[in-house]
Amino acid sequence: MNVRVSVHQMNPRRGDVDANLEAILEALAGAPGSLAVFPECALTGYAFESKEEALAAAESVPGPSTDTLLEACRDHDVWAVVGLLERDGDRLFNAAAVLGPEGVEGVYRKMHLPYLGVDRFADPGDLGFPVFRLPFGTIGVLICYDLSFPEAARVLKLDGAQAICVPTNWPEAASVSCDFSPIVRAQENHVHVLTANRVGEEGGFRFLGRSRICDFQGRVLAEAGGEPAVFTAEIDFAAADHNRVVNVPGRYELDRIAHRRPEFYARLATS
Amino acid sequence: MNVRVSVHQMNPRRGDVDANLEAILEALAGAPGSLAVFPECALTGYAFESKEEALAAAESVPGPSTDTLLEACRDHDVWAVVGLLERDGDRLFNAAAVLGPEGVEGVYRKMHLPYLGVDRFADPGDLGFPVFRLPFGTIGVLICYDLSFPEAARVLKLDGAQAICVPTNWPEAASVSCDFSPIVRAQENHVHVLTANRVGEEGGFRFLGRSRICDFQGRVLAEAGGEPAVFTAEIDFAAADHNRVVNVPGRYELDRIAHRRPEFYARLATS
Repeated sequence: MNVRVSVHQMNPRRGDVDANLEAILEALAGAPGSLAVFPECALTGYAFESKEEALAAAESVPGPSTDTLLEACRDHDVWAVVGLLERDGDRLFNAAAVLGPEGVEGVYRKMHLPYLGVDRFADPGDLGFPVFRLPFGTIGVLICYDLSFPEAARVLKLDGAQAICVPTNWPEAASVSCDFSPIVRAQENHVHVLTANRVGEEGGFRFLGRSRICDFQGRVLAEAGGEPAVFTAEIDFAAADHNRVVNVPGRYELDRIAHRRPEFYARLATS
Repeated sequence: MNVRVSVHQMNPRRGDVDANLEAILEALAGAPGSLAVFPECALTGYAFESKEEALAAAESVPGPSTDTLLEACRDHDVWAVVGLLERDGDRLFNAAAVLGPEGVEGVYRKMHLPYLGVDRFADPGDLGFPVFRLPFGTIGVLICYDLSFPEAARVLKLDGAQAICVPTNWPEAASVSCDFSPIVRAQENHVHVLTANRVGEEGGFRFLGRSRICDFQGRVLAEAGGEPAVFTAEIDFAAADHNRVVNVPGRYELDRIAHRRPEFYARLATS
């Protein structure tokens, strides 16, 4: 089944949740019937200077902002992956909420934290790599630096993800991650990869944009430059389940999942 | 310690071991004092049509051809990673020999086999992902399709590899692997990656060349086009052990090894 996906490359304002929420609501209204992916910390901004400052922008999920977003999802028949800061007691997570017309589908909490921005003060994710079974297909979520860890995308694929949505804030030094990792993760896992990077400057960092929609063969279907942008593509979720790649029938065929040798990978699960 | 590495992008002739051996000997003589990396099946060719035809070009390691190559390694103070077909009883492995002035350092047997060329008839590697501790640094070897499996390079890094040598035969349909995977594997593992692809045509396949030397940050230090080529770089092996990347001290630091979450990766070792 072909599904319309939309990527929203935005420039969130740090700590100004009202303005960011307004921008996301406007984007949802403009992308009816799609799976819409927003940047990391799209609701809050990223480059906070203290945990206190970050907690002031954080909220629970569900919470006031996601309640408002859920209304928009219902009104416009949209599913949305929205980066935000999640408060859970006195814990702070760099997270993404998966929202849809029927409510909160789940939350992903960033598992791999660089020493950068709000991640300096955030708690490491404690929920592993869940997949979310939506009516049109199964998605996983990774946030920014998570994409540097091939184990993360691989777990999602093995657990049934057909597309991986990647809210991100890649600054200038992260050009390899921004430009090459989405393509390689898509190909090696035979999974669609959608990256939604932010643009603009915050806290001394300049963000790259260059968001992408890559199909399960690593082909770039759509991409943006370095300015705010919205772009879409139609992707066939279920096609990602058929892992065999037939280049020349009977002479050149690949299967990057079936050809794994998991009995030789135990080393990866030890520290 | 900086070490000179050389990549030899060649056009082997299928089944003509004498001619291929001659070409490799000439290359070794021209690369004294370096670690020299040759393509997959550089000694034998790749696109065989039957196991019998492939076995006729295969030999044991050590064996007559590697004995000759070892003499050249001694004469020119060269270490070499040479792709070949290895015969072990009636088993056939797509393999690479690691040779040096002091003898055979080891053999790597391709672990992941596509349905393509001689791999249709070869036995899957049974030795896992060994690292080879050479006087100037520690290397691992992966062959072609192995690079599509992120687990393989990761195991090598975790076991101490500072550089991964990749003899390969990437044909035209493999442009993502050829152009992007070396960079991403280098960056995500903080390890040097040297790919030696072949050129020319064989069995209906046209091979891409575009071999690379990437440093441990994913920077391309040297690369070739689509014709036969030899190129070199100086790489600092030990630098790959210092995994912390300091972009802005105290504000933007990464460590793609220390920041792993192996307790969440058990899924990778189950089928």
